[in-house]
Amino acid sequence: MNILQQQIKLMKRPLGTPKQEDFEFTQAPIGEPAEGEVLVRTNYISVDPYLRGRMNDVKSYVPPFKLDSVISSGVVAQVVESKSPHFQKNDIVTGMLGWQEYTVAEESAIRKIDTTLAPASAYLSVLGMTGLTAYFGLLEIGQPKKGETVVVSGAAGAVGSVVGQIAKIKGAQVVGIAGSDGKIKYLIDELGFDAAINYKTEDVKTALHKACPNGIDVYFENVGGEIGDAVLPLLNKFARIPVCGAISSYNNEEADIGTRVQGYLIKTSSLMRGFTVGDYASRFREGSEALAGWLKEGKLNYEETVTDGFDHTIDAFLDLFKGANLGKAIVKVSEIE
Amino acid sequence: MNILQQQIKLMKRPLGTPKQEDFEFTQAPIGEPAEGEVLVRTNYISVDPYLRGRMNDVKSYVPPFKLDSVISSGVVAQVVESKSPHFQKNDIVTGMLGWQEYTVAEESAIRKIDTTLAPASAYLSVLGMTGLTAYFGLLEIGQPKKGETVVVSGAAGAVGSVVGQIAKIKGAQVVGIAGSDGKIKYLIDELGFDAAINYKTEDVKTALHKACPNGIDVYFENVGGEIGDAVLPLLNKFARIPVCGAISSYNNEEADIGTRVQGYLIKTSSLMRGFTVGDYASRFREGSEALAGWLKEGKLNYEETVTDGFDHTIDAFLDLFKGANLGKAIVKVSEIE
Repeated sequence: MNILQQQIKLMKRPLGTPKQEDFEFTQAPIGEPAEGEVLVRTNYISVDPYLRGRMNDVKSYVPPFKLDSVISSGVVAQVVESKSPHFQKNDIVTGMLGWQEYTVAEESAIRKIDTTLAPASAYLSVLGMTGLTAYFGLLEIGQPKKGETVVVSGAAGAVGSVVGQIAKIKGAQVVGIAGSDGKIKYLIDELGFDAAINYKTEDVKTALHKACPNGIDVYFENVGGEIGDAVLPLLNKFARIPVCGAISSYNNEEADIGTRVQGYLIKTSSLMRGFTVGDYASRFREGSEALAGWLKEGKLNYEETVTDGFDHTIDAFLDLFKGANLGKAIVKVSEIE
Repeated sequence: MNILQQQIKLMKRPLGTPKQEDFEFTQAPIGEPAEGEVLVRTNYISVDPYLRGRMNDVKSYVPPFKLDSVISSGVVAQVVESKSPHFQKNDIVTGMLGWQEYTVAEESAIRKIDTTLAPASAYLSVLGMTGLTAYFGLLEIGQPKKGETVVVSGAAGAVGSVVGQIAKIKGAQVVGIAGSDGKIKYLIDELGFDAAINYKTEDVKTALHKACPNGIDVYFENVGGEIGDAVLPLLNKFARIPVCGAISSYNNEEADIGTRVQGYLIKTSSLMRGFTVGDYASRFREGSEALAGWLKEGKLNYEETVTDGFDHTIDAFLDLFKGANLGKAIVKVSEIE
């Protein structure tokens, strides 16, 4: 199949906020599947803040992207041709695949998804990595109890919105922090948060004080920076802080300087724990089943901000750092047939 | 018993480093024990960095000291007169008692100690709160495993010196950070640390890099500040940081600003947990027995810096912030008879 397709490669390690010039659209042959391989057509690409970290050449929980190589992330795709007994033409699958229109994937790199339960794109959001991140981070590290106060930053994002809803399911008071009045309205009206703070128009310290009269028992950290700092004085005894993201600092060129946490942690015997969803890989089935169950029962809402067209993949990625997305940011590359 | 004794009261909330003028020596009658009470003569007073926090008027794990009131801390004392069936004249006891020469204590506020196992003052150090702090903080939060690298700051202090020795007992590589060449020599020659860094004469980042070729699995935090910052880039995957103290910041008048931890915790799925020994109060017996066992077996050394005379109690307390003490700082008020 000597047909050409579009790909996106990382050409330069971004300094600060990534720019279009750091990436390049190139063309390459689609290739043909060998025995045990499957050719798939990309339907949806997941763009995620954590990918920014992989663009730096530093040790982290996932290795850095190579320069002059195709970027990869979560993808939903449809089987075009299968040389694997496990997949048939038109099966819908998900896996960590390249930013390109077609992929020849090893059979072990993809798994089939059930689109009767939710639309395929949900496997990149509420039923995918971001849903699982919310599930394990909140329940394993945050451990919210009935009546406790849970604060989540990046609350209208893919992870934060699920965190808040699971915390509500567990009977907590939930306060979200997000960056627009539209997001605030969404959190309260659609997701049932008890309070929400617009960090762009309100003084976060003052607003948190008002929204959390009983202090903070769980702070689910997605953003870091000054918002993370503002939470510290309100921690209750034995508070828990799952540290999932720090998007405010991902594009920093200088060191990330702010309030030291030691004094606050000692005074309250509180816990901060960084994690990545891969830490819970052995329990993904449990998490997926719980999330799917809540989805079926109508207890879990989710939003996707879908950008149309492979050509706009970089735009969708860059928009993450402007807080443009409500819920999960996804690029739609082609229709499912 | 209308005899007068010396007491030390807190008169002003210190701004920054406490000064002599913040305290006052006063005289008061000794008083007489009622039924269920015991009159004790103070032998040893424990001076501890955490007391600085209690001198501020802020919410913490222990309530602030009241102004114009006698300061209290761990004390070893001898029974002068008992109106309790549980205590006899000359029994040696310990408890949280006032900075004064004599105390009329409720029987429930003191407990007898066994001076055949160790000298009485050890119940303010290795067999007392600081030993238990090291024991629970290291083993419950730090959880060092054989062959792992454990770094401890304030390593020649009352808590740090026990932390390092327990880590050695558990088979870890132990690196201490302390503030004089004498302390460094003590850590290596007397306590068996594998390496030690003098933060006053060495660049801590460079020295840590050299002393920890396999990264850091456990960092026992006693000091905070720039030393705490320097550890972060060396954390291994799933590292643990028991946060016990932050003495570098206790006298800060401004906010404690430094490296934000979020990014480091995420990259390594690491844990920071503040604690205070009281969190483990229900398990003090277990801790005391383990410490006493290691002491008997000769596996645990300890030092005390003993300041002689009640008149010098404030001096001994202020010396803590100059790093003057090796091991536990204690004031000897009177001989045991």
